[in-house]
Amino acid sequence: MSFKEALRDMATSVDGCVCAVLMGYDGIPIDDYISEDAGVDVSLMMIEYSSILKDARKTIEVLQTGELEEFSINTTLFRVLMRAINEDLFAALVIKEDGNFGKGRYVLKMGAPRLRELLA
Amino acid sequence: MSFKEALRDMATSVDGCVCAVLMGYDGIPIDDYISEDAGVDVSLMMIEYSSILKDARKTIEVLQTGELEEFSINTTLFRVLMRAINEDLFAALVIKEDGNFGKGRYVLKMGAPRLRELLA
Repeated sequence: MSFKEALRDMATSVDGCVCAVLMGYDGIPIDDYISEDAGVDVSLMMIEYSSILKDARKTIEVLQTGELEEFSINTTLFRVLMRAINEDLFAALVIKEDGNFGKGRYVLKMGAPRLRELLA
Repeated sequence: MSFKEALRDMATSVDGCVCAVLMGYDGIPIDDYISEDAGVDVSLMMIEYSSILKDARKTIEVLQTGELEEFSINTTLFRVLMRAINEDLFAALVIKEDGNFGKGRYVLKMGAPRLRELLA
């Protein structure tokens, strides 16, 4: 199984999910799956969001409030869920506002070990 | 009802919730409720997290991906849920990692209009 296949499986199993991506904290994607009806420049959005995530990770390190696991930014249009995969990478789902956020959390949590296996 | 009472009601209705706070995006709290067994400097944590939230809001404005509604940073120790109240303020819950995150989301969503009423 390729990264793209794993990401597509995750995205297509969540109602309203328009993108699944495996990305570095530096904003460079390893691979992604983006549906045709995304409606926005999801790649640009994830690059910008990765920068916020990177800052959050630094803050958490300084505060010593644990290791970063999950991060989400929800607006009136999109719910973006990010989950740490390893020291360098995270996975994210972009879900439309009427999509299934709870299922997204579950699928991302369950999909993370699979992505780690593919990276090994 | 005071802000502190509203915040205490929210915090004590969620298992594992150690803090509820109403805070400006500038990191200055309006009021808060912090339980005695918080175990960390929750005030400092929220000041730092508010700075990340402020950056996220700026990014969302630039990207035009909607209005910020909810933001969460989950680590191996704490789940922190933040929700926009108005242009200047947000409310947050700090929940221990074994606490009820789903209930926290619900309580924060339901509590937001109540805080807006108290501000009016």
